Amino acid sequence: MAEKPLILVCNDDGITAPGIRNLIKVMNELGDVVVVAPDSPQSGMGHAITITGILRCDPIRIDEGPQSEYSCSGTPVDCVKLAVNVVLDRKPDLVVSGINHGSNASINVIYSGTMSAAMEGCLEGIPSIGFSLCDFAWDADFKPALPYIKKIAAKVLAEGLPQDVVLNVNIPKFTGEPYKGIKMTRQSRGNWEEEFDSRKDPRDRNYYWLTGKFVNYDAAKDHDEQALADYYISVVPVKSDLTAHEHLNRLVSWEL
Amino acid sequence: MAEKPLILVCNDDGITAPGIRNLIKVMNELGDVVVVAPDSPQSGMGHAITITGILRCDPIRIDEGPQSEYSCSGTPVDCVKLAVNVVLDRKPDLVVSGINHGSNASINVIYSGTMSAAMEGCLEGIPSIGFSLCDFAWDADFKPALPYIKKIAAKVLAEGLPQDVVLNVNIPKFTGEPYKGIKMTRQSRGNWEEEFDSRKDPRDRNYYWLTGKFVNYDAAKDHDEQALADYYISVVPVKSDLTAHEHLNRLVSWEL
Repeated sequence: MAEKPLILVCNDDGITAPGIRNLIKVMNELGDVVVVAPDSPQSGMGHAITITGILRCDPIRIDEGPQSEYSCSGTPVDCVKLAVNVVLDRKPDLVVSGINHGSNASINVIYSGTMSAAMEGCLEGIPSIGFSLCDFAWDADFKPALPYIKKIAAKVLAEGLPQDVVLNVNIPKFTGEPYKGIKMTRQSRGNWEEEFDSRKDPRDRNYYWLTGKFVNYDAAKDHDEQALADYYISVVPVKSDLTAHEHLNRLVSWEL
Repeated sequence: MAEKPLILVCNDDGITAPGIRNLIKVMNELGDVVVVAPDSPQSGMGHAITITGILRCDPIRIDEGPQSEYSCSGTPVDCVKLAVNVVLDRKPDLVVSGINHGSNASINVIYSGTMSAAMEGCLEGIPSIGFSLCDFAWDADFKPALPYIKKIAAKVLAEGLPQDVVLNVNIPKFTGEPYKGIKMTRQSRGNWEEEFDSRKDPRDRNYYWLTGKFVNYDAAKDHDEQALADYYISVVPVKSDLTAHEHLNRLVSWEL
C-alpha cells in the first residue's frame, strides 16, 4: 500500500482559530497532517516575510488528533517556509491554508495571508489550496463546507495542479440551505473603498484606523463574486506570473 | 497653462532611504510632489495592511526641496491608502514607489513592499510605477539611473497605463559603463531557495533567521532577469487580476 500523503496545514487567523481546527479534522481523513501556523492573528499580511527580526517555531498541542503541530511567530508565508525547510523531512504532497474567517474572493486575494501561504506552497512546487468561508464570525458554521473541502483537496491530491497555479476556494456563508455546488471561475474586478477613522490619542496626537467596504466593479456574471452571490462555492486558479502579457506588445511600441 | 501633475512618492525602505531621496529629486522636475512613506524599513512586507493596530501619519521635513512629506507608521500599502484618503485633496496623477535598494525582478515582485505600494496606487485607478536598483548598498550609485526614471515617469504621465496594470522597473547595478537602454519584458520564472540559520537564545530556546538565495529557473531569454543580466533596464507590466485564465477551461472539466 502506498504511503499516505503528507499534508501541510497553515492559515492566517492563528493556530487556535476554529477555521484551521476544522481544516485539520478534514485533512486527517486524507493523509498525515503537519500544522505550522502563526501563534497570533496575521490577517491582511499579504505575502509579507520576516527579514529584520527572528522567527520562533515550536511544537505545540492544541487539541486531540493524529496531527503534529507547530506554532510560529512569523507571517503565514514564514510558516510555509519554516515548514518546508526546517520542520518537515520531505516535501509535502499538498499545502492547504485556512479555513479563513472571511472572504478572499476578488481583490482580497492580494491582501490575504491565507492565500499568500497557499501561494508560497505553490512557489515551492507543491500543489496548494487556500480555503475561505465568507463569514467573519468566530463561531461561524464551517460544517456544511467540509465535504466540499475534502472533495477539492482529494481531487488535487489525485490530479495535481498546473505548474505555478494555486486554487483560491471561497465558500458562501451558510444560510441553512444546502450549497448549490462548486464553480470554477475567475477573479472579479473590485476594490476596497476606504475611509479612515481619524481619532485623537490621550496626548492629543492624531491616529487612524483603517476601515472601508469592498465594492465589486465587475458588471459581468462569470466571476467569483457572482458565484458566491448565487450560493456556489467559488474556485479560482491563481498564478504567480503577474506579467500582463496581453499588454506587452502595445507597451513595447512605446520605444522607451 | 495646465496645472502641474500631482505625484505621490512612496517606498518600503523608509522615508530617509537614499533611494527615495533620489526619486523625490527627479519627481520634483515633473510635478508637485507629496511623499507619504514608512517611518522605518518595511522590506518584504508584500501587500500587508494594518488591520489590528492604529496608524500614525504626520508631516515631516527630511531635506530641502518643494515636496511635502509625511511619515507613516504602517506598511507601504497603508502609506498609499492614507495618502489617497487622508493626506491628499485630490487623486494624484502618478504614484511612484522606490527607488528600492535591491532587485524586485522575477518572483520578488510578490514579496516587495515597493511593488505593493505601486500596485495599491494602480488599484486606486492611478497610473503607478515601482522602481528598484539591483544594489542593496545604502550608498549605491543611483545617479546614472535617474534620467531613465524621469523618462519612464514622463511617458506614463503622458500616455497613462492600461487599466489594472502597474510597471515594475528594475535597474542593473551601475558598473561604470552606460546602461544599454530599456527593455519591456516579462517576469521570469524563479524562486528563493531558503535556508534557515538556526540558533539558540541565551535561555537555550531555538530561533531562526531567514536566509537564502534567488535562483532563476527560466531557460528562455525574453524575461526581466535576462534583460538585467544584459545590462538593460527592465520594465515588466504587472497586473492585479491573478486568474490563471489559460488553465480555466481544463480545470472546469474537473466537474467538481
